[in-house]
Amino acid sequence: MKVHSSDPHGIEPDALLSDLGEKVLIRRIAGWLPPVRTGSGVQVGLGDDCAVVNAPDPTVEQLLLKADAVVEGVHFTETAEPERVGWKAAGRVLSDFAAMGGRPGWLTVTLTLRKETSVDWIERLYRGMRSLAERHPFEIVGGETVCTSGPTAISIAGVGLVAPARLTLRSGAQPGDCLCVTGGLGGSILGRHLEFEPRLREAEILTREFKPTAMIDISDGLARDAIHMGEASGVGMELWGEAIPVSPAADELARGSGRPALEHALFDGEDFELLVALPEGLWQAAGARLKAACGTDLTMVGRCLGPGAEFALRRGSVCLPLVDAGWDHFRSGRPTGERLG
Amino acid sequence: MKVHSSDPHGIEPDALLSDLGEKVLIRRIAGWLPPVRTGSGVQVGLGDDCAVVNAPDPTVEQLLLKADAVVEGVHFTETAEPERVGWKAAGRVLSDFAAMGGRPGWLTVTLTLRKETSVDWIERLYRGMRSLAERHPFEIVGGETVCTSGPTAISIAGVGLVAPARLTLRSGAQPGDCLCVTGGLGGSILGRHLEFEPRLREAEILTREFKPTAMIDISDGLARDAIHMGEASGVGMELWGEAIPVSPAADELARGSGRPALEHALFDGEDFELLVALPEGLWQAAGARLKAACGTDLTMVGRCLGPGAEFALRRGSVCLPLVDAGWDHFRSGRPTGERLG
Repeated sequence: MKVHSSDPHGIEPDALLSDLGEKVLIRRIAGWLPPVRTGSGVQVGLGDDCAVVNAPDPTVEQLLLKADAVVEGVHFTETAEPERVGWKAAGRVLSDFAAMGGRPGWLTVTLTLRKETSVDWIERLYRGMRSLAERHPFEIVGGETVCTSGPTAISIAGVGLVAPARLTLRSGAQPGDCLCVTGGLGGSILGRHLEFEPRLREAEILTREFKPTAMIDISDGLARDAIHMGEASGVGMELWGEAIPVSPAADELARGSGRPALEHALFDGEDFELLVALPEGLWQAAGARLKAACGTDLTMVGRCLGPGAEFALRRGSVCLPLVDAGWDHFRSGRPTGERLG
Repeated sequence: MKVHSSDPHGIEPDALLSDLGEKVLIRRIAGWLPPVRTGSGVQVGLGDDCAVVNAPDPTVEQLLLKADAVVEGVHFTETAEPERVGWKAAGRVLSDFAAMGGRPGWLTVTLTLRKETSVDWIERLYRGMRSLAERHPFEIVGGETVCTSGPTAISIAGVGLVAPARLTLRSGAQPGDCLCVTGGLGGSILGRHLEFEPRLREAEILTREFKPTAMIDISDGLARDAIHMGEASGVGMELWGEAIPVSPAADELARGSGRPALEHALFDGEDFELLVALPEGLWQAAGARLKAACGTDLTMVGRCLGPGAEFALRRGSVCLPLVDAGWDHFRSGRPTGERLG
């Protein structure tokens, strides 16, 4: 490869990973990360056998641990902008922290890459994670790169922090609780799955001021995640078809797919909104508060039923059993990648 | 698929991942994990958006964060026993905790699997991690499974704990320090890379009783990791060829490869021994202590030089420059998998 003397690293902008090697790549990555923030608790970041961070006061905060991966052909296509892929990869983990009532702390990033990956693609991937960190502060403190002949994957492991009084599990929903969702649902495949806003601020307000009994982030589709919450809590649930906030993207998708928009809102994955169980009488105040503070809608979409009850979808006078019809990586007969398009 | 009525899960022993689906797999994994130990600090393990663990007292311990992956064809072959693959995947992270003077806390496991993977293979993988946890206690608190068309990969993210007084970076080596290694080096490809013992007990004794100035785990080969430590510490180093403890496996490999056994001991990867910089006058007492307590040899293999000095290999009266000739995932022209023979 010809080396331009204008580049201090001696690497052309269109260089491939195979031109750099792992050691140089890791140095480059260190340069793409923002300086460590004051108060972030990072004592040692990249460069040693492990990162070292200061544990929080255990009487003030507990630790949240989460690992999550996005894979080319499943969670993003080859043509997706790498900034958005980076945003999504880290954003999914932040969405999980939000669903527990917590905040992000420190992330490690494992990149599974082909040799032919361009260095520019990797830099743009990190730029996306950095943009997210500017909105919802966290530190990238480590990670590694491994070589693959298969699809590119970005695996993020995160440590979050949560005050014990704020910790909200998916298993606490009570009969009679109102079921509410943030934002609009469905059709995220048209773009929002790559640029969603993790609902950290909304979760902070809800857990501080309204004490939800349960929360979960909607990643497998409202129907499936409602069932996850209901099963964990030991309660039945009914969702109200007419009340479910169908996103404009779900409407647009419905025009092409020939399926009702409501079906997209119920079953499409990767909304990354919150499903929240609130004690009766709180949801209107909570909704007004979220709208004023974050501009985010909170919509009541159903109610928790008693322990013996089923999962049901009510539309007018018709009541249908709600089925766990979400997408399955391993069972689906659909070829990899079809999920996105 | 025919279902035997004798299996309470309705899954045959030779079932494939595609027979189970993700949800059932996750339930099965939960069943393969040992019960959470008392005092492990786990409040919520598998099953919610995140795991929840109790942070340590920050005046007593800091957190170590590490992510690491093993990939089929690079770190293990298709025919490797899955128990050993599981042991290795988690053991690599434990080896990094040892190199910082710490101990393991909680791990998450991300499995990147093909649909045709047998359920039995996955169960045996977890059995290997469980064996390791019986020797060096840690808890598996989460993870996920993703589908790939490429090679199988196991990515582990771990949180470890370290007392500030024990924390040992790779950057603290001083001119005049003795360089010591645990165990024997080279030839781990013949088997030990799948069944090494993370040097947690050795590191505990060394950091408590002998205060090393620097430690690193030897994963890229002694030569390369010595350079990593020297560069991080800003010191030169000389290694003494005659003193380096060549493992029996390196001798065996040398008989087949036609290369000197010392070359294998210097440059082969995945020893997972410790390279330790100790202030002068301590290594003999430290060696006797490790031998008595753990049965592990500690051998002085060289010395740290002044800040301007180079990295050198001394053999008798000959002194050669030591080169960073370790293996590179991305630059190597060798096809994936050749690393393991």
